[in-house]
Amino acid sequence: MSATSDAHVSGLAAELEPQLVAWRRDFHRHPEPGFGEFRTAAALVRELTALGYDVRLGEEAMDPAARYFVHEDRVAASWERAREEVEPQLLERMAGGLTAVVAELRASDGPTVALRVDTDALPVTESGDPDHRPAAEGFASSRPGFMHACGHDGHMAIGLGVATVLARLRPSLHGTVRLLFQPAEEGTLGGAAAIAARGYVDDVDALLSVHLGLGAQSGEVWSRALFLATSKYRVEFHGTAAHVTNSPETGRNALLAAAQTALALHALPASSRGWYNLNVGVLHAGEEQGVTPRHATMELGFWAENDEVHDWVDARVQEVVAGTAAAFGCGVDVRLIGRAPTCAQDGELAALVRDAAGAVAGFDRVDDVILCRAGEDACHLIKRATETGGRGVYVLVGSDLASGHHTSTFDFDEASLVRGTALVAETARRILSPG
Amino acid sequence: MSATSDAHVSGLAAELEPQLVAWRRDFHRHPEPGFGEFRTAAALVRELTALGYDVRLGEEAMDPAARYFVHEDRVAASWERAREEVEPQLLERMAGGLTAVVAELRASDGPTVALRVDTDALPVTESGDPDHRPAAEGFASSRPGFMHACGHDGHMAIGLGVATVLARLRPSLHGTVRLLFQPAEEGTLGGAAAIAARGYVDDVDALLSVHLGLGAQSGEVWSRALFLATSKYRVEFHGTAAHVTNSPETGRNALLAAAQTALALHALPASSRGWYNLNVGVLHAGEEQGVTPRHATMELGFWAENDEVHDWVDARVQEVVAGTAAAFGCGVDVRLIGRAPTCAQDGELAALVRDAAGAVAGFDRVDDVILCRAGEDACHLIKRATETGGRGVYVLVGSDLASGHHTSTFDFDEASLVRGTALVAETARRILSPG
Amino acid sequence: MSATSDAHVSGLAAELEPQLVAWRRDFHRHPEPGFGEFRTAAALVRELTALGYDVRLGEEAMDPAARYFVHEDRVAASWERAREEVEPQLLERMAGGLTAVVAELRASDGPTVALRVDTDALPVTESGDPDHRPAAEGFASSRPGFMHACGHDGHMAIGLGVATVLARLRPSLHGTVRLLFQPAEEGTLGGAAAIAARGYVDDVDALLSVHLGLGAQSGEVWSRALFLATSKYRVEFHGTAAHVTNSPETGRNALLAAAQTALALHALPASSRGWYNLNVGVLHAGEEQGVTPRHATMELGFWAENDEVHDWVDARVQEVVAGTAAAFGCGVDVRLIGRAPTCAQDGELAALVRDAAGAVAGFDRVDDVILCRAGEDACHLIKRATETGGRGVYVLVGSDLASGHHTSTFDFDEASLVRGTALVAETARRILSPG
Amino acid sequence: MSATSDAHVSGLAAELEPQLVAWRRDFHRHPEPGFGEFRTAAALVRELTALGYDVRLGEEAMDPAARYFVHEDRVAASWERAREEVEPQLLERMAGGLTAVVAELRASDGPTVALRVDTDALPVTESGDPDHRPAAEGFASSRPGFMHACGHDGHMAIGLGVATVLARLRPSLHGTVRLLFQPAEEGTLGGAAAIAARGYVDDVDALLSVHLGLGAQSGEVWSRALFLATSKYRVEFHGTAAHVTNSPETGRNALLAAAQTALALHALPASSRGWYNLNVGVLHAGEEQGVTPRHATMELGFWAENDEVHDWVDARVQEVVAGTAAAFGCGVDVRLIGRAPTCAQDGELAALVRDAAGAVAGFDRVDDVILCRAGEDACHLIKRATETGGRGVYVLVGSDLASGHHTSTFDFDEASLVRGTALVAETARRILSPG
Repeated sequence: MSATSDAHVSGLAAELEPQLVAWRRDFHRHPEPGFGEFRTAAALVRELTALGYDVRLGEEAMDPAARYFVHEDRVAASWERAREEVEPQLLERMAGGLTAVVAELRASDGPTVALRVDTDALPVTESGDPDHRPAAEGFASSRPGFMHACGHDGHMAIGLGVATVLARLRPSLHGTVRLLFQPAEEGTLGGAAAIAARGYVDDVDALLSVHLGLGAQSGEVWSRALFLATSKYRVEFHGTAAHVTNSPETGRNALLAAAQTALALHALPASSRGWYNLNVGVLHAGEEQGVTPRHATMELGFWAENDEVHDWVDARVQEVVAGTAAAFGCGVDVRLIGRAPTCAQDGELAALVRDAAGAVAGFDRVDDVILCRAGEDACHLIKRATETGGRGVYVLVGSDLASGHHTSTFDFDEASLVRGTALVAETARRILSPG
Repeated sequence: MSATSDAHVSGLAAELEPQLVAWRRDFHRHPEPGFGEFRTAAALVRELTALGYDVRLGEEAMDPAARYFVHEDRVAASWERAREEVEPQLLERMAGGLTAVVAELRASDGPTVALRVDTDALPVTESGDPDHRPAAEGFASSRPGFMHACGHDGHMAIGLGVATVLARLRPSLHGTVRLLFQPAEEGTLGGAAAIAARGYVDDVDALLSVHLGLGAQSGEVWSRALFLATSKYRVEFHGTAAHVTNSPETGRNALLAAAQTALALHALPASSRGWYNLNVGVLHAGEEQGVTPRHATMELGFWAENDEVHDWVDARVQEVVAGTAAAFGCGVDVRLIGRAPTCAQDGELAALVRDAAGAVAGFDRVDDVILCRAGEDACHLIKRATETGGRGVYVLVGSDLASGHHTSTFDFDEASLVRGTALVAETARRILSPG
Repeated sequence: MSATSDAHVSGLAAELEPQLVAWRRDFHRHPEPGFGEFRTAAALVRELTALGYDVRLGEEAMDPAARYFVHEDRVAASWERAREEVEPQLLERMAGGLTAVVAELRASDGPTVALRVDTDALPVTESGDPDHRPAAEGFASSRPGFMHACGHDGHMAIGLGVATVLARLRPSLHGTVRLLFQPAEEGTLGGAAAIAARGYVDDVDALLSVHLGLGAQSGEVWSRALFLATSKYRVEFHGTAAHVTNSPETGRNALLAAAQTALALHALPASSRGWYNLNVGVLHAGEEQGVTPRHATMELGFWAENDEVHDWVDARVQEVVAGTAAAFGCGVDVRLIGRAPTCAQDGELAALVRDAAGAVAGFDRVDDVILCRAGEDACHLIKRATETGGRGVYVLVGSDLASGHHTSTFDFDEASLVRGTALVAETARRILSPG
Repeated sequence: MSATSDAHVSGLAAELEPQLVAWRRDFHRHPEPGFGEFRTAAALVRELTALGYDVRLGEEAMDPAARYFVHEDRVAASWERAREEVEPQLLERMAGGLTAVVAELRASDGPTVALRVDTDALPVTESGDPDHRPAAEGFASSRPGFMHACGHDGHMAIGLGVATVLARLRPSLHGTVRLLFQPAEEGTLGGAAAIAARGYVDDVDALLSVHLGLGAQSGEVWSRALFLATSKYRVEFHGTAAHVTNSPETGRNALLAAAQTALALHALPASSRGWYNLNVGVLHAGEEQGVTPRHATMELGFWAENDEVHDWVDARVQEVVAGTAAAFGCGVDVRLIGRAPTCAQDGELAALVRDAAGAVAGFDRVDDVILCRAGEDACHLIKRATETGGRGVYVLVGSDLASGHHTSTFDFDEASLVRGTALVAETARRILSPG
């Protein structure tokens, strides 16, 4: 039997509640876009350092080249703003959007437990409606056009809460605690892939990821949330403009190339190997009626039940795009702008989470597997951890929501913060406590 | 033999040159969009009234309902600006974009000769390059985003010049001079149709329209410039958004409806009855990758060698759009936003123009027919004049250009203003001089 | 305990083996197409009558109007051939393709047990290869172009075997045995629907359907084979021919209408409510290069995991076809040529089948549910039986195959005939034996 | 002044009328397909040899490799039939479809005049209606499925007539007469190209081609019939079959590849360089509803006002086909199956023809240029003749028709045979008569 008890962990988490809420609200007030989480990362570094963690930032924490896409303009704007808020020596290490933070606490020899937390906000303008609690209580976004509308502010609060609890338990722990604060989860632009590329999950024994809400109510917990594999592309067709009465024969029509590509992509057959759907969600082409459209931009995504189906769709997308562009004499650029695989999740670790949930105050429903019809960047990390011999699960901590994820009036039940903190910390404690 | 000679007309025009240039440059400095030519029309009204013409404006001059399309936002912005420049009693008569000006000088019984002049500018931002003469000499556009980039400023100068010359010749003229200053020629939004609908060409014996440039050099003149029939449409497809993984089956895909419409329209066969081309020039659809596109906007135009082919294409466009939208379960709005027919032009009147050109100083090449691969709003007027028993021609007065029509560095040879004025005035004089 | 034992049933079936094989080979030698099973039905009528069954044929056994499609030419050719083989009084009752046979044996009051058997062959030319057993042993198809390549010959042998065994057990049975020999299962042209429409399953307590093979090996049995809902359509587009150089504008292009329809159908989105796939399998259009194609014929099918998804696809197909035909100015005929729903299958009856299988010699694997990725006409009957208060299952009796279903070298393991007969007869015996 | 007069030529032709009619009817009774004109060529060889001409056949007369396409099965069937009708030593020289006949009569030094005549029939079944004169008078086609439905039988009669007249005039002629009897004009499969490739028009001073009918009435003649450039392709798409429910993801859909190719080809823009039309006239794809179509065959043609536009379309066709096939993962074979260019025709030679027509009995309308909206194989020869320094014209000899070309009741006015013979012979006589 370990020196600390689960009741103790639950109590530590409960004591942290005011701090958890304060962290969450500070992050909520200062949302930043993917790879533009400069102020956010700086705050995390300060807190974690103060807790005694060994903290890595920037190129040490992530491989820039492993990212899928960087919204350069958003990152640049966030950088400008951060210059007024972040100390230069910290900020410079994040130049170009290297906003991952990896923090480690080594207690002794023993297993390594990691928690992955996502840190980016969404390009959503937050509601100012007095019925919207963040607005009413003064912690709504101070950055027009961006909002923590998915709960990552809460995830970070839980991450810091777990860091705090485990730091206090350090003397009784055997092994290592690692916290992975990843940028750019939304759209799965590759923050997770960039951290995985630095090897931070290769030696992990148990990797936890945690998410609030997603349809689960306060007091509910699922030990394994499964996701769809997904990829997103931006495709640019480059044709040749021509005056449509003087010399139409000299034009190469990028609009028609894109139109036919959209149809051909949607016309891919169903697969017997699993469900998927593909959507060309955006198409912009041409400039005026009298000119052959010389340019078309298409954004598409697909979501598949498993990686095999994902990879099959992916191969077909390349083929359709290249062939159709050639058919219309157009050049084409295909840019991957987001990707996430599925990931197998470990049954034993999931059982351990459920056991831990049973020992934490506040959970009235504990279940195992739930399917979320969306992609998740964390799958990069869980998949890599599994491939390198570890275990991983994606834990869904229920939370009553004011409105759906990604909406301007999104808000969650802050009581979930204590429960989430306690659940993760207790699970880690059990793993790091010698038999 | 008439009391005035052609030499006299040429001389009067030459004397006017400083005034012609001044008028042109004033108009050039103050470009206004189609149906937003408030300051322009007010200036014309003042000049023509001063010359003794009976001037009509607003609802008297045009039928608002006969217009094809009004860019409400552009007109509103132009209106706001005009409130600071135009006396209220004039401006109010043009409320809603009724910017046609019809001016008449009745000398005595006799035939009616009309000149049609277009008054609108283009949504082009003028170059500020010092090599661009309007910029160098200080008469470039004062209105960002708009420019007289097609020569209508010159046409108006010629119109006022003709009005001036013929007013001076009034004692020796037998008949009526009518000047039709029409808004909204560009895109053929229907300024001409709106004037025609008020009957202003029904009693005209000879209708002249004049254009500078269009590929003809200074000193050249064509008595008949033929144009293509054209129509332009904006098509809006209304589908149903759906989350593409949670409930894709509830979506109705406006992007695919538009894509297939574009292909079907371009796939219409050639016609044995004459050349035409159709172009879907613009397509915007969808908002994000994860949502079934619920909205698509398409802009298309077609240009045909004759009205028969135009009308056949037009019927097929309606059919394709309605059918394809229905195939995808989408609603659809088809909005005509521009139209012009072809027009037969009278050989005798053309010969008269060429004879007059021979009597005017400065023309070194006089020719009859030239095909312009574009649509022209004036065809509404010439066609109507012909149908009601009159004659009409579209005269092309050559002018060396700094760069092509509709470009930001467009500029013409101002020496053409005297030649154009003299040619039209001399032609009118001959018609209005008794046997 | 019942008067007869399961061992007894197994023994009766085993004794029948030579007869079962003889029946099967006779049917195999004389394959007939859907609704053209004239000789087949006549043979069934004779055997069943001889066994003491009350036999119905023609309009008594089926509702002609409930069929989906009749290949008139195939039926006519089969009719011509049958005139030499079938006594006129029997044949005349089947005029027009009314080839269903319903046979009933009423033992006493009690429940009604029904067995459905399909009787049609496929438009496949049988292999003459000496490695192909039917060829080697002289019972290959005598009708070029048709072959029992799916095992319906075996199903009929089992049906007659069951009829024989149950007739022998009659004294000890309480209730009614009904045999439904249905035409036109292949392509699901509606033989089952036509029998259902006469009410023959409305009063059934237990409905069994049996199939050999389908991937299951000899000795295996599944008590519930689930199928996909399916519909098949033939679509004819009627355009207008035109000489493509003299008057292309007068044509209406049925080929392009069909091409765009095919693309739009394949581009329907995935459904969150279940898996489906749609296939435009055949397209024939046009006659020569110099003429606008005036005619196009398309054959398409779709297969869905459940009826909800099937019905959604069905509605979209109508919409796409009608809209696209209209877009191209074509008329269109949409002809349903095959359909089958899914059907819920009863767990208790399935358990009874598995229990019976345990009591029959020769089964070494007994399982419950298997998904077959195909449509099945029997679902009409099972669905109707369930809706009217009965129970139904589709039993899969494994059989080693020489090659896949629907191939020219298809052949099954005749040892399965005894096992299938015994299983069905034993299941029926248990139901018809008083508690 | 020449030794023979035009009146003399007219008289010689008139005397030949019974023979001309006999030749024509014999050819009409024995129609043969392109490159299968074995009996036809043999008859020509016999007649021309008897007239004293130096006759070449088979490989001497044509280059087999220059042909565009050979309908192997039609040629083989024609060959089988010819074995019963043609002496082996002649037939063998035509093995493989080498059915061109080149005949030359060298009178003395002097210019070379050539006449090109086409010899193939059409795959049309001739009407047996008693109102159809060939049927009523017993000279209808004896070969089911083939018919001289375009007048080539008449052209051959004229060719032999011209050969006869000029042979009689030989003593007074200065120069060489060459007759080019070309196979496979219909569909422009390349009979002309194969003769041109042997150099037979390189030294020709005046090349005449003659056609009856084509909309011109008896008594009318046009000295220059202009044609469209054309190419025809057969495109085969090779996909991969797949069971559409078991493994749809393994299929490569040739039907959709073809559908999208058809749309993309029809969607090519109009050209400012001249009129053209493209037609995908035939599409056959797929075999059954349940299988991904693995094969699609498309036949397409295009017809252009000039070679520049033809070549532009041709390049785009290759591009569209290759790209679209690749987009769908299909292999593709593109087979050119017919081609003809346009050809410039000489004004002086045309004037000479018209002069000659004025001197021939029976022409009441003599005109210069007419546009025929079709392709013509003779353009290969006229174009080559022109490129190598000669002159050429395509003469249209009017003839009242019973019904349109290529129909089953086509028949022409046999009185045109004398007129056509006289016109060509008289034109040749004038060229070959010394100043």
